Amino acid sequence: MAVYTEVSDEDLIGFLTHYAIGDLVSYRGIAEGVENTNYSLRTTVAEYILTLYEKRVDPADLPWFLGLMQHLADHGINCPRPVPGRDGAALRRLCGRHAAITTFLPGVWPRRARPEHCGPVGASLAALHLAGAGYVPTRPNALGPAGWAPLLERSLPGADGVRAGLAADLQAALARILANWPHGLPVGHIHADLFQDNVFFLDGSLTGLIDFYFAATDTLAYDLAICLNAWCFEPDVSFNVTKARSMCRAYAAIRPLSAAERAALPVLCQGAAIRFALTRLYDWINTPAGALVTRKDPMEYVRRLRFHLAAEDEHAYGL
Amino acid sequence: MAVYTEVSDEDLIGFLTHYAIGDLVSYRGIAEGVENTNYSLRTTVAEYILTLYEKRVDPADLPWFLGLMQHLADHGINCPRPVPGRDGAALRRLCGRHAAITTFLPGVWPRRARPEHCGPVGASLAALHLAGAGYVPTRPNALGPAGWAPLLERSLPGADGVRAGLAADLQAALARILANWPHGLPVGHIHADLFQDNVFFLDGSLTGLIDFYFAATDTLAYDLAICLNAWCFEPDVSFNVTKARSMCRAYAAIRPLSAAERAALPVLCQGAAIRFALTRLYDWINTPAGALVTRKDPMEYVRRLRFHLAAEDEHAYGL
Repeated sequence: MAVYTEVSDEDLIGFLTHYAIGDLVSYRGIAEGVENTNYSLRTTVAEYILTLYEKRVDPADLPWFLGLMQHLADHGINCPRPVPGRDGAALRRLCGRHAAITTFLPGVWPRRARPEHCGPVGASLAALHLAGAGYVPTRPNALGPAGWAPLLERSLPGADGVRAGLAADLQAALARILANWPHGLPVGHIHADLFQDNVFFLDGSLTGLIDFYFAATDTLAYDLAICLNAWCFEPDVSFNVTKARSMCRAYAAIRPLSAAERAALPVLCQGAAIRFALTRLYDWINTPAGALVTRKDPMEYVRRLRFHLAAEDEHAYGL
Repeated sequence: MAVYTEVSDEDLIGFLTHYAIGDLVSYRGIAEGVENTNYSLRTTVAEYILTLYEKRVDPADLPWFLGLMQHLADHGINCPRPVPGRDGAALRRLCGRHAAITTFLPGVWPRRARPEHCGPVGASLAALHLAGAGYVPTRPNALGPAGWAPLLERSLPGADGVRAGLAADLQAALARILANWPHGLPVGHIHADLFQDNVFFLDGSLTGLIDFYFAATDTLAYDLAICLNAWCFEPDVSFNVTKARSMCRAYAAIRPLSAAERAALPVLCQGAAIRFALTRLYDWINTPAGALVTRKDPMEYVRRLRFHLAAEDEHAYGL
């Protein structure tokens, strides 16, 4: 929970003169979100989200992210739509940060993933993959397979302090994953971070997808593997194959999975698990215990990784 | 900035069945606020604030606070109005906390107090004092004069660690303040914490007062003294007599100040300054440096106190 950049009322009122979205009624810092500063912004016209981009986001990537959101919203995906200023630009500066206003999406994210969430998540992910097809610019995935070895390298010295033997386990797993990594599967724009807090529901229906700031151009089925990791494990890290089956079937009903994509599911899931294990491990080692941001336990993903390493084929995922 | 209690969507949906305020559309933790947990809550009917009362608030006081807010709102004060459940009760339990829903107030709090804010603050404070007159139950002010000596006592061991000689300075000042403290001035319900972040403005007009959880029954002019401390010092702790004059005159235009109240302004302001110096000092000494809540510097109020100790009479405040 964090507001990293405090925006004054005078700064905000000045900022809003660049927009034709009515007059300021209220704004409040949002406690959720760990990467950027978000304000809930209400004007006489509507409610919006004001985002100030903090240090983890590369400013050079922002036009790509905002362009993708605009493209997806134009093609039927319920995601935040960047709001252009009077000059047509959606990306501006505020309080020394890059900043943008996006539309407000109704809905609440489910604190507990239930089986009935998983079908809609799979279907929405497939719809997102199809809708992204016409967005021409690409963004390499810095947190994709090519990024894992350097990431592990930087955490190796501290890994055994988290759990004895962890460094060697991760090195062995990563070597195996990279050796088996599939090539030639369909590629497109992926969300890459579709965890529970990025999916809104109301009355059992999925109402929106948010937070596209990890989106990239990568193997589409890898995005499904991320969602299987994010949604289909129980709190005790047992795998709920009913959730997985529901998610994969709903995905495939919108965007059919090829035999090669299905066969690759175990290694794609292994890759997704090690990706989150590695970023969490890095943050765990490098975040002071008293910091504003709560550290997430990397071992949760090491345990998921173990499940996927033992998965023999796509049947492990209910297919 | 803090959300101390995380409310799940399932808990909230269950909680809302006790109300007739429409269906849940969204809710988000608010980063502002250091005492309680606040969520911005939107339903199909309107926007609300959901507050979960945390450890600093005595549950026995909550009916008094909510009753005061209801009374003030009924008598023309723009303040949050407690929203009753279907059973008529505004105070309920949620996630192990006492909790209430109140109405949403438009407006933004001014990050920088400007002279034009001070008249409206004075006038609204006087209107609040008049409107409170018909609210029968009383609440002794635990942070009023009777509370200062015990508060200082608990901070004495650490005071000189904040600044050499601070313990003796505060002891001498407190003895003088208590010896001169006025008795027999008009008493009523005071806000007692009307700082900038509790006053909303829009387009130069004051639109609302919030956060009544320090309200109590005490000397009315002492509440004005708190506002003089909160609004009329510049960032370099110089006193802006133009702001003070504007505030006092606007107050007196709504609720005339007696000669005795005017004459007591210096000691009332001394009391208000030492009250915030003492609570800040206590928190400074007892809050770990890495805690979620930002510690406020007690010396800001020790410096204000110095100004008031040197004030000879009400002329120091522009009267």
